Formats: sequence, C-alpha cells, structure tokens
Amino acid sequence: MSLKIYLAGPDVFRADAKELGEAKAKICAEYGFEGLFPLDANVDLSNLTPFESGLAIYGADIELMDRCDLIVANMTPFRGPGLDGGTAFEMGYMRAQGKPVWGYTLDARDYGERVEQPEPGWDVQKQHVEAFGMADNLMLVGSIAASGGELLREAGDPAEPQHHLNAFRKVIEKLAASQKG
Amino acid sequence: MSLKIYLAGPDVFRADAKELGEAKAKICAEYGFEGLFPLDANVDLSNLTPFESGLAIYGADIELMDRCDLIVANMTPFRGPGLDGGTAFEMGYMRAQGKPVWGYTLDARDYGERVEQPEPGWDVQKQHVEAFGMADNLMLVGSIAASGGELLREAGDPAEPQHHLNAFRKVIEKLAASQKG
Repeated sequence: MSLKIYLAGPDVFRADAKELGEAKAKICAEYGFEGLFPLDANVDLSNLTPFESGLAIYGADIELMDRCDLIVANMTPFRGPGLDGGTAFEMGYMRAQGKPVWGYTLDARDYGERVEQPEPGWDVQKQHVEAFGMADNLMLVGSIAASGGELLREAGDPAEPQHHLNAFRKVIEKLAASQKG
Repeated sequence: MSLKIYLAGPDVFRADAKELGEAKAKICAEYGFEGLFPLDANVDLSNLTPFESGLAIYGADIELMDRCDLIVANMTPFRGPGLDGGTAFEMGYMRAQGKPVWGYTLDARDYGERVEQPEPGWDVQKQHVEAFGMADNLMLVGSIAASGGELLREAGDPAEPQHHLNAFRKVIEKLAASQKG
C-alpha cells in the first residue's frame, strides 16, 4: 500500500488549482506515494445554499484527511504574514491523529521579518511578535518538528506554479529518503 | 467534574494577555466551567535557544489541549483578513479528537467582505475569494457547525478587552444552556 499524502494549501484558491494539484500528485506518484488534493469539484453542491456548500466541502475534506497517512502543507504566507487558516486547521487535525506533518514555504524568512514592528517585538497594534527563529506560528512549526517532519523554506514567487513544484519536489524527496531509514 | 475549556486565540500576544486570560477563566468559573489559558509563563525556557523555546511552548499547549474537553476560540481577524494561524491549528487539533469547537469574532462581517476584490470573487493576486456566507475559511466554520458548537459574530474593537469579554460571556452562556439540554 502506497503512503497517502494529503496535499494542503491555499492552492485551491488559484485559477490553476486543478493543474497545480495534479502536478503535485504526479510528483508524489514518481516517488511511489499517492497525493490527494481537496478539489471542491468532487462534492455535489446542487440545491445547496452557499453556507451548506461550505459545510459539504468541509465534510469531504475531513473524509479525505481521515484516509491519508500524512500531510504536506503549502505554508506560503496567504493574505498576510502567516499561512492560510484552513491549511493551519488541517495541520492540527492531522497532527492530533498522530500523523506526520511536512511543509514548505516560498517565503524563506522568519515570521517576525514579515511583520512591521514600530517597536522591536511589537506590531502596529501593540501585539507581541514571536521571535523563535520560526517561519510561522510556533504551533505550526512545532507540529512539524514534533512529528518528525521537515519544513522546507525556499524563497520563490508564489504566483509561479513551477516554484511551488520545485519546493514540493524537494519535500517529497526528503520524505522518500526518510521512509528508507 | 467540571468541563475544561481550552481558551484559544491571539490573546497571548497582547500586552494584557494575562489579565484577559484570567478574566475569561473567571467567566468560565461563573458558569461552572474551568477555563485553561496557554500562558507561556508555565514553561521553563531557561537554557533553551529561541527555537527550542518555541518547541517547548508547543509541547505545553498540546498537553493542555489534550486535558481539555472543548475549545472556545477567539477568531477575530489577526494581521490580515483571517484568524490567527496558531488558533486555526488548535481548532483542527481539538476537532480531530472529537471535541466541540466554539468561537467568537469581533468582526461580524463575512470573510469575503474583508478581502479587496478588484474583480468580484478574486483578490488582488487573482486568488479566489470564498463566498459561503461564512466568517472565515470553511474548514474553521465547518468544524464549529459539525461539532455542534456556535460561532458568535459581534462587531467590536479588538483592542478593547471588555469587547472580548462581552462576546466571550455570550458564548459561555450559550454553551452552558447547551449542556442543560
């Protein structure tokens, strides 16, 4: 049985979501893994209100996670200095099931370097900015470390699908190597 | 045994984090619940590097979640249109354990209303903006609905601790009522 990988990230919001997901799944296959991508198209949304549609997609994504053995998350900052909230939720969900959490980000900097700090250690709203040498909130980075996963940081342009695929391939390579140990 | 509530949110980054956490725990106590607040102060960080400190706090927060029966999350937008990523992680973690997820936000609007959309349905980076009539990403809102929790939306000023406490009290009131059913 090949390892099933849940492909998480705000990739689903891209115009090229389907192509990028399929390209990631293809890379997984090259290494003997099965990559599963949460595509809303798999859910029948006819006769549902928008809110009900959201709940149906939630249910489908949960089912998909329950079937997967581990998660590889695109943690590239999304509409702010931190990762997409849905992706963060999924990392927590998988971690609570004892599954390994891996990730990559196309912003190689520490989280704090992305937040304006008029006073060192404090943002414009006088909220503390974490300085743990981590790429994002400690719960996210902590879950990767605690689960034996790795977080690849590689500067790139999030708009370029190939930059995602280059980083993603490196993660899958490391994952494949870790399975041989 | 009183129900143990994990108090999640970016509250921990506030200058008044301790006071706000204690005030929330006090409200919990009024209703017969025990509110537990992830305060970094409980972790011995001496002789640790910043990165190791982050991991130690992660471990302490995980232990605290494992001890709690449900989560009440402050989902007020944090440094962007969506909630804090650490809080999103914790909602997923608790949900995977089958625990109820409740929340509040001091921004009553739908998520999409907080994102600039030069073209309706698409943000400035040409990424799709969800329109499910939800206050945040569907994984977050979905987890609350699926777990039988509630998300209270009440416009307020996130800088004002009393606005948090007013909304939080309403959530705890509803939670208490739901326990009587």
